[in-house]
Amino acid sequence: MLGVCYYPEHWPEDWWARDAAEMAELGIKFVRIGEFAWSRIEPEPGRFDWGWLDRAIDTLGKAGLKVVLGTPTATPPKWLIDLYPDILPYGADGTVRGFGSRRHYTFSSETWFRESARIVEAYASRYGDNPAVAGWQTDNEYGCHDTILSYGPEDLKAFRGWLRRRYQTPEAINEAWGNVFWSMDVNSFDDVELPVRTVTETAPAARLDYWRFSSEQVVRYNEMQTAIIRKHSPGRFVTHNYMGFFHDFDHHAVSEVLDFASWDSYPLGFVEKFPFSEDERGRWASTSHPDIPGFHHDLYRPMAGNKFWVMEQQPGPVNWAPWNAVPTPGMVRLWAWEALAHGAEVVSYFRWRQAPFGQEQMHAGLNRPDRTRSVGGHEAARVGKELAAFGPLPENGTAPVALVFDYEASWITRLQPQGKDFLHEELTFRWYEAIRRLGFDVDMVRPGADLSAYKLVLVPSLPHVSLEALEALRKTDAQILVGPRAGSKTRDFAFPAELAPGPLQAFLPLKVTQVASLRPGAQVVSGAVSGHVSRWREWIETDLPALATYADGAAAILQHGRFTYLTGWAEADLLGDLLANTILPAAGLEPIAVPDHVRIRRRGNLVFAFNYGPESWTVPDAATKRFKLGGPVVAGADLACWEA
Amino acid sequence: MLGVCYYPEHWPEDWWARDAAEMAELGIKFVRIGEFAWSRIEPEPGRFDWGWLDRAIDTLGKAGLKVVLGTPTATPPKWLIDLYPDILPYGADGTVRGFGSRRHYTFSSETWFRESARIVEAYASRYGDNPAVAGWQTDNEYGCHDTILSYGPEDLKAFRGWLRRRYQTPEAINEAWGNVFWSMDVNSFDDVELPVRTVTETAPAARLDYWRFSSEQVVRYNEMQTAIIRKHSPGRFVTHNYMGFFHDFDHHAVSEVLDFASWDSYPLGFVEKFPFSEDERGRWASTSHPDIPGFHHDLYRPMAGNKFWVMEQQPGPVNWAPWNAVPTPGMVRLWAWEALAHGAEVVSYFRWRQAPFGQEQMHAGLNRPDRTRSVGGHEAARVGKELAAFGPLPENGTAPVALVFDYEASWITRLQPQGKDFLHEELTFRWYEAIRRLGFDVDMVRPGADLSAYKLVLVPSLPHVSLEALEALRKTDAQILVGPRAGSKTRDFAFPAELAPGPLQAFLPLKVTQVASLRPGAQVVSGAVSGHVSRWREWIETDLPALATYADGAAAILQHGRFTYLTGWAEADLLGDLLANTILPAAGLEPIAVPDHVRIRRRGNLVFAFNYGPESWTVPDAATKRFKLGGPVVAGADLACWEA
Amino acid sequence: MLGVCYYPEHWPEDWWARDAAEMAELGIKFVRIGEFAWSRIEPEPGRFDWGWLDRAIDTLGKAGLKVVLGTPTATPPKWLIDLYPDILPYGADGTVRGFGSRRHYTFSSETWFRESARIVEAYASRYGDNPAVAGWQTDNEYGCHDTILSYGPEDLKAFRGWLRRRYQTPEAINEAWGNVFWSMDVNSFDDVELPVRTVTETAPAARLDYWRFSSEQVVRYNEMQTAIIRKHSPGRFVTHNYMGFFHDFDHHAVSEVLDFASWDSYPLGFVEKFPFSEDERGRWASTSHPDIPGFHHDLYRPMAGNKFWVMEQQPGPVNWAPWNAVPTPGMVRLWAWEALAHGAEVVSYFRWRQAPFGQEQMHAGLNRPDRTRSVGGHEAARVGKELAAFGPLPENGTAPVALVFDYEASWITRLQPQGKDFLHEELTFRWYEAIRRLGFDVDMVRPGADLSAYKLVLVPSLPHVSLEALEALRKTDAQILVGPRAGSKTRDFAFPAELAPGPLQAFLPLKVTQVASLRPGAQVVSGAVSGHVSRWREWIETDLPALATYADGAAAILQHGRFTYLTGWAEADLLGDLLANTILPAAGLEPIAVPDHVRIRRRGNLVFAFNYGPESWTVPDAATKRFKLGGPVVAGADLACWEA
Ligand SMILES: [Zn+2]
Ligand SMILES: [Zn+2]
Ligand SMILES: [Zn+2]
Repeated sequence: MLGVCYYPEHWPEDWWARDAAEMAELGIKFVRIGEFAWSRIEPEPGRFDWGWLDRAIDTLGKAGLKVVLGTPTATPPKWLIDLYPDILPYGADGTVRGFGSRRHYTFSSETWFRESARIVEAYASRYGDNPAVAGWQTDNEYGCHDTILSYGPEDLKAFRGWLRRRYQTPEAINEAWGNVFWSMDVNSFDDVELPVRTVTETAPAARLDYWRFSSEQVVRYNEMQTAIIRKHSPGRFVTHNYMGFFHDFDHHAVSEVLDFASWDSYPLGFVEKFPFSEDERGRWASTSHPDIPGFHHDLYRPMAGNKFWVMEQQPGPVNWAPWNAVPTPGMVRLWAWEALAHGAEVVSYFRWRQAPFGQEQMHAGLNRPDRTRSVGGHEAARVGKELAAFGPLPENGTAPVALVFDYEASWITRLQPQGKDFLHEELTFRWYEAIRRLGFDVDMVRPGADLSAYKLVLVPSLPHVSLEALEALRKTDAQILVGPRAGSKTRDFAFPAELAPGPLQAFLPLKVTQVASLRPGAQVVSGAVSGHVSRWREWIETDLPALATYADGAAAILQHGRFTYLTGWAEADLLGDLLANTILPAAGLEPIAVPDHVRIRRRGNLVFAFNYGPESWTVPDAATKRFKLGGPVVAGADLACWEA
Repeated sequence: MLGVCYYPEHWPEDWWARDAAEMAELGIKFVRIGEFAWSRIEPEPGRFDWGWLDRAIDTLGKAGLKVVLGTPTATPPKWLIDLYPDILPYGADGTVRGFGSRRHYTFSSETWFRESARIVEAYASRYGDNPAVAGWQTDNEYGCHDTILSYGPEDLKAFRGWLRRRYQTPEAINEAWGNVFWSMDVNSFDDVELPVRTVTETAPAARLDYWRFSSEQVVRYNEMQTAIIRKHSPGRFVTHNYMGFFHDFDHHAVSEVLDFASWDSYPLGFVEKFPFSEDERGRWASTSHPDIPGFHHDLYRPMAGNKFWVMEQQPGPVNWAPWNAVPTPGMVRLWAWEALAHGAEVVSYFRWRQAPFGQEQMHAGLNRPDRTRSVGGHEAARVGKELAAFGPLPENGTAPVALVFDYEASWITRLQPQGKDFLHEELTFRWYEAIRRLGFDVDMVRPGADLSAYKLVLVPSLPHVSLEALEALRKTDAQILVGPRAGSKTRDFAFPAELAPGPLQAFLPLKVTQVASLRPGAQVVSGAVSGHVSRWREWIETDLPALATYADGAAAILQHGRFTYLTGWAEADLLGDLLANTILPAAGLEPIAVPDHVRIRRRGNLVFAFNYGPESWTVPDAATKRFKLGGPVVAGADLACWEA
Repeated sequence: MLGVCYYPEHWPEDWWARDAAEMAELGIKFVRIGEFAWSRIEPEPGRFDWGWLDRAIDTLGKAGLKVVLGTPTATPPKWLIDLYPDILPYGADGTVRGFGSRRHYTFSSETWFRESARIVEAYASRYGDNPAVAGWQTDNEYGCHDTILSYGPEDLKAFRGWLRRRYQTPEAINEAWGNVFWSMDVNSFDDVELPVRTVTETAPAARLDYWRFSSEQVVRYNEMQTAIIRKHSPGRFVTHNYMGFFHDFDHHAVSEVLDFASWDSYPLGFVEKFPFSEDERGRWASTSHPDIPGFHHDLYRPMAGNKFWVMEQQPGPVNWAPWNAVPTPGMVRLWAWEALAHGAEVVSYFRWRQAPFGQEQMHAGLNRPDRTRSVGGHEAARVGKELAAFGPLPENGTAPVALVFDYEASWITRLQPQGKDFLHEELTFRWYEAIRRLGFDVDMVRPGADLSAYKLVLVPSLPHVSLEALEALRKTDAQILVGPRAGSKTRDFAFPAELAPGPLQAFLPLKVTQVASLRPGAQVVSGAVSGHVSRWREWIETDLPALATYADGAAAILQHGRFTYLTGWAEADLLGDLLANTILPAAGLEPIAVPDHVRIRRRGNLVFAFNYGPESWTVPDAATKRFKLGGPVVAGADLACWEA
């Protein structure tokens, strides 16, 4: 189904009815509203002006549209900040981040927690049982503009409390953080300072705890909003719109109280945000890299309920990347269908009409500022028509391949990269790309998730292996491919006594004795499989024979039973060879190689193909297939769907 | 005529007379002094020590030299800052910018305004009718070291007052700035904050207003100084020395009260400052790019009175660029003659003698620190001799080509580049270069200036088209070439309701429906003219036929009557072809193509040619010409002048 | 002899005895301990817990090991900072640099001076005559993490006092600093501000004085610690461990009270720190550039007593460079032998065992975190065995070549580079490399040191030539090669009245009349010698004939008697040609050219060769030599030693 984000407060009230009618005509079912409207709802402390929002919801409802109501906490109004300046967040440099844009709050402020509860209560109690309201979005894009980690007095106070609860005694902190190292011992919890603004780096265990604390503050805050909504709005869903390539808090933990996860998909902007090569950026500038949408669909779908929404879908050029391309004609339609193929329930475009004013005036909408349907709007309308003809989409199944995604791994490797291009996000994405190039569907799961349904489990980056994660690996019969640095850290950001891979030695009898981060340039690996390693290399002590070795004869890949260990950052050639010729056969999986611009995805009995390239692609054995969309030859920026 | 900048306070008093005699001998007529001397004039609050300056002016006057007196407000002394710390400016990061160098004041400080008036009054009342004093320079290089935009408490107070006068009600601000966008509404003028130190960007309309406010503060400040001087110094001129490639305030508005504009010409330093390619920087490192001096001469000459001064002329290596070359022998002479050809009344070298101490000790002068004439000094002396023999220069006429230069356009595109290499300064300079490569003289004029005398008007960048600008375009019969983004913004930094080019739709019946900023790399344009577009591209809705199209068939250039619209950032090939083969013929203008290292300029009945290359250049039809300087073959770093 | 750095406080007490036994077994004689242990020695104000350190020293002593005790002032504990926050240093941006890592103090704090004396007194009085204690290290790595220049209130107070003592009157400051330049005059010492946080740069003479002041604060602080130690610990040595490529204070002055200098040698990390080309960085990533260790050995050995220690020697990968390689097998042994060949008395590895926790957990040790000898540990053990068999090493002699190294030159050129790639450190290193490529031993000496024993003196960078420096040059018969910018500044950071090379005109009758800093790209020099100049070029007024000229005929190299002056930054080709074919013959020195990956060093009657390349190298005339280590063919990462 289609949705759209709408801001009635931005437009004359006499435009609303025509807007609603045109939404319905385009095939839209859901309209998200209200998430930035606090100053218009409560223009002064305690004085509420509900009238316009009442009428807006009424207008949309009368047009047959369902409303998703966003709590307005991403934009506290000026008067609130003036009353309670302790709401404001602080940068790592110790300066306050002030009013004037959005997300100007720290999760640590007790005042903010209370005031948030008050406004959510007000929203939820007024609209909780409104028949037009189908569900809720909490806040908007937690963490956007680098707002998870705040470094102010409220944060320090809350952190000390968190430590007190976690460690009980200052001695326990000294032990856990290794404070003996540079005479960093604390004698009381009040001795703990924020781990910033120091002469050189602070203890990594302290910084990891600060990140865990900050992430848990988000969890607690989202739980608060969700609980209030559920109290007043029975039968409605609660979700939150996550972002792309953003891992500053534990989305798995936040999602535990949600009905499903949502995310905001800006495939072109993300081409500039991810560390692609300039060649890749040039090639994919107007279509997106073919794994950017899928990577996130497959990350967010398994988070809650094996379903998800795209809450914001790019409809044309955006305004926030270094360069902002116009999508290749066809892509606005393609991205919507691809989300649906990956299991989305709703694809909601951002936004109905391009705003002529404000910070995002260069961000396209389904309509131009002159009340005319935009290029992207026409593509969305085509999706609307196609969906109407298509009939209901089948249920999402389970993929054959799981990829373990750990938010803590992102924090640990960012706190201690050891080599400046060791990027967790890139490593994970490249492993995803490798398995998708071989035609497989993927479920990205949290460490500790049940892995028994999978035939292949990829573990690209898991420095700290928790007991739950270990148990899940033990209980599956899948082939398991483990990447470098796995098990290299304890809970307290220390070396395990037995060296890496730590608890994974239960499956992989080997020890990592030395590691090198490598300057740009690749090392050759050869043996049963071959290719290149760059960025990272480990030296191993083991009795296992090597599946492949480096040029100096040292082991590069080791196998034991259904576990395979990669000692370095495998380039695409090595990773592809290893998967295709060793691990997939052992897993009983047969790859379907697709060109680098085509991706396949199954939903129930349907198979979809998406072509990100300019060249067309011919579906193999097309004659035997029944096409529901497109046909045997899939043009660039086009798609096909057939029954399996 | 020649001038020089001199600092008697830097040298033993018994050197002054010889200095003055040597100035006169070299051909110098004007000497600028006094602009950094506050601490020596008023060493303690209210205690003035005029003696040395009296004697210095007397010494110069007796040698037949005329004095240009600079007000010393660029360097308030330490005791003044200690008395009134509210004078100091603030950085965007909220930190105060302290005493110890220069320009340590904010235009917003009322204290500073009062103290400035006091010292200017003191200078002007003492020397206003001194017969040796020919004129005045207000302050020195407004805005140098990034000092137009200050972000402190005094600035906020003044900004709120400015807003109160401009908007009358907070509701009017909310409307103009689009504050509804992210609940940024203000309930009173005291709710307005400085548009910095926020979590993410603030409203662009707010930031544009802050820039306008800051620019108007400069206007008001310069008016104050000028009025005081005029009161005490009848018959003397008042000017200010502007800088190169600096657009942080509206120089047109500041110039309204001046007798003429001056500027400080450092052709080699500017090669490093402007965003040239590294190839260009290497090629022009020791001569300057051939359009750097002319661009500024043609910008500043039309500002007031169709004349100007070069108040500071580079005499050798400077000290402030990343690399500081020695000029190719001949260039110090060439730059002086080129300024005169473009209409300068005086070319004044900075400085008489290189200072052996202080921040600029590596900056050359006409004399070395050891009281010996420098290499540049010898070239200046040659100009002095040549000028004496040359006779009076004819009056400046009007050029056939006008280029509309808008300071607001610089602010708007810097506040919202949308593509990270969309640089107003570069775009404007490249258009200037293109028309100069075709041999034309150019007047750069403000939007709204009378265009009726021109045959061709270039409008490279005019996002906001004011009523005056529109009227001026209507009233001329010139061919008009309009660049991308024209008319894309209202006065309030919003989309016009009818979309871009907004009011220009009166002449160009078309709508810009989508824009893309383009990653590095060029797109081919072909048709009646051909070449390349990079950085920026627009999509157009119109009934007009395209003069040229992109590879996908979309219109790239559109014409309607005497208006031509360029939908993208035209590379030199496309811009040259369009001008030479379509627009110039329509304007009845015939180009004189010169090699890329030669430039031509007319003054009255004289034609000058300047050769920036190492290769020589032969004047066409030289036999028919009467040469006043040089001859038919113009060597590298040399020039020629003949009667037209 | 070998040593090691050990942290008993990091390990269970019941590990200590085995650790000590294994040290002795490996051949270790000295153990540095205690330098980061303040919080465990004095956990609360005035409460000392000496027990564990008593037992640790006892355990080491009983194993036959000698202890080097480090004063713990690099890591003041949290309670001390809370009691006296004026201890903390400030960044140039005005923000305090807080507790949480190390070196969080400013040398200017009187409180800190007093508290440092108190803890040093406590250490020294307890262990001064302990028979196991052989010597002392003051503090740890003065200046690490950019801590020499602090910019807080304590610093300003101390600086004003320093100025008062040095200048007596404010007028003297105004004169020395050229404060007239921009009305920067001060009327009292309290008018002086820190030379930071200004609108643009402050007077260079003020900044140089601030650097001198800061350097002298280190001297004074180190003198205080040394005096206390000497009082309590007769017969023990006192040293300090300096760093590599670090010149923020005058190490010559600090060393005056030390028995010998020590330094911390991290050859691989320094490859990333020094401005090598990316090609060089790739080539030397796992072995180090062959001159990095030697450059520092030859800098620190002559500082005090013609001997030195390597207090910390890299034993494997480190944790602090952008990329951290594993050393090529053999290099950990090679670096130790090379230090000994250059005159080291002791090479002490950092650290005994890799810490599994804390900021340096990725830093290798001689043992792995699992109590097993590491790869580097095995190489160290081989050195231990070889040393036992080798017998005593001969005394260090004097090298034939001196290179004058001036810390002030580093400050002056950093304060005023004039060209952004004019790097004193790089220039000096490249000259060292050039003479080492010709096979010579080098002593690096301070300006003013006795030069009479040398045949060749290199003066790559000496902008300010003091009277002592001048006298030393006068009194030697050596050939003297002088680099650009020599003598270009007075004591007060001004041009000498006679222009550069200032006082050196006594030997070199020439004047520098113009200088250019050159954009990347080289200029050809030809004549009696030939090659290239880049980055910097000077123009000369002189009657001397040129030894070689630039393409435009201007002099590039000038000679007068035993003095040769280089007018530019000579590339390796020009410098090599000049040395080999003109200067060395005149000095009566015969070069031994070695490939770029091999270096030779003599100690007494022994000659050592070190091979940093993968290719092997054959010792010339090997048949005539008696080898003490290795043999005629020296493999990559291997060495040889024979009798001369
Ligand atoms: Zn964990
Ligand atoms: Zn305007
Ligand atoms: Zn000196």
